[in-house]
Amino acid sequence: MTEHSLWRLSRALRRAINDHHFDALAELLDDDVDWAIYGPIDMFPFLGARHGKAAVLEAIRQIGNAVHIRRLERETLMLDESGAATMVRCAMTAQDSDKPITARLAQFMQFRGGKLARLRILIDTFDLVEQTLGRPIHLPRIGNFA
Amino acid sequence: MTEHSLWRLSRALRRAINDHHFDALAELLDDDVDWAIYGPIDMFPFLGARHGKAAVLEAIRQIGNAVHIRRLERETLMLDESGAATMVRCAMTAQDSDKPITARLAQFMQFRGGKLARLRILIDTFDLVEQTLGRPIHLPRIGNFA
Repeated sequence: MTEHSLWRLSRALRRAINDHHFDALAELLDDDVDWAIYGPIDMFPFLGARHGKAAVLEAIRQIGNAVHIRRLERETLMLDESGAATMVRCAMTAQDSDKPITARLAQFMQFRGGKLARLRILIDTFDLVEQTLGRPIHLPRIGNFA
Repeated sequence: MTEHSLWRLSRALRRAINDHHFDALAELLDDDVDWAIYGPIDMFPFLGARHGKAAVLEAIRQIGNAVHIRRLERETLMLDESGAATMVRCAMTAQDSDKPITARLAQFMQFRGGKLARLRILIDTFDLVEQTLGRPIHLPRIGNFA
C-alpha cells in the first residue's frame, strides 16, 4: 500500500517550518494550491488566504520565523483516497520570546496527483491569541442560558 | 444506499436548537457520548466537554436559548462508514440581542450503531468572540516575520 499523501506533506511542512528547508514542500504543492488558515491576520500576518505555490511557500517561511514546532499530537484522523481531515494539538515555541504555545487546529486537505490542491485550517484562535499575549482577555458572560 | 448518520444527526441538532424539540436528537445520541466543543467557556458556558446523553442534551438546550440557526453552509465534507468530518459556516441570530453572528466551525463525529459516540467541534473562536462583543479586540502585531 502506498503511503497516504498526508504523511509526506506533514513531514515536509514540519521540515519547512522548523529547518527552513523548502524543497520537499515545494514538490508537494500543486502550482495552483488553494490555501486558507482562518484567524486574526492583524496579529498573525501569515494566516489568511493564499493562492499558488509561491504565496504558500512565503507564508510557511513566515510561520517558520514566528514559531518552532515541538510536538504534534493527532487527536482525530479521517483519510480517503484524495483527502484528509485531522484535528491536532500543536505544541510550539514562539521564536521571539521562547514562550511555549499550544494550539488546537483542524486541517482539511485535498490532494491531486499526490500534491496538495486545497487546504483549510481552522484554529481555536481565541485560545491562541490569549497564549500569545501571555494574559487572559476579560470576557463578559453572555446572558440567557437558564 | 442508506442515508449517512451525519444527515439525520444534523437535522435533529438543528431541530433541537431552533425548535426545542429534543426527541429525535435523544434517539441519535449514544448513552455514553463523548462530546467537546472547544472555546471560551467563561463567555459561552454551553461550550466545553460533556459526557453522556443527558449532559449533551442540556448543553444543546442552552445553545438553543442563546442562538437560533439561520443557515448552514457546508464548505468541506468527508465521510466514511462510521465517521464524518466537515467544515461549515453557521449563520446564527443571538436570542438576547437579535444580532447576526456567523461562525466557521470544524466538526468531527464518530458513530456507533447509527448513534453519535464522539464529537469534537473546533471554532474560529476569536472571530466569534469579537462578533458577540460587537467590537474588535485590539491586538498587537507579533514580531519577527520578515
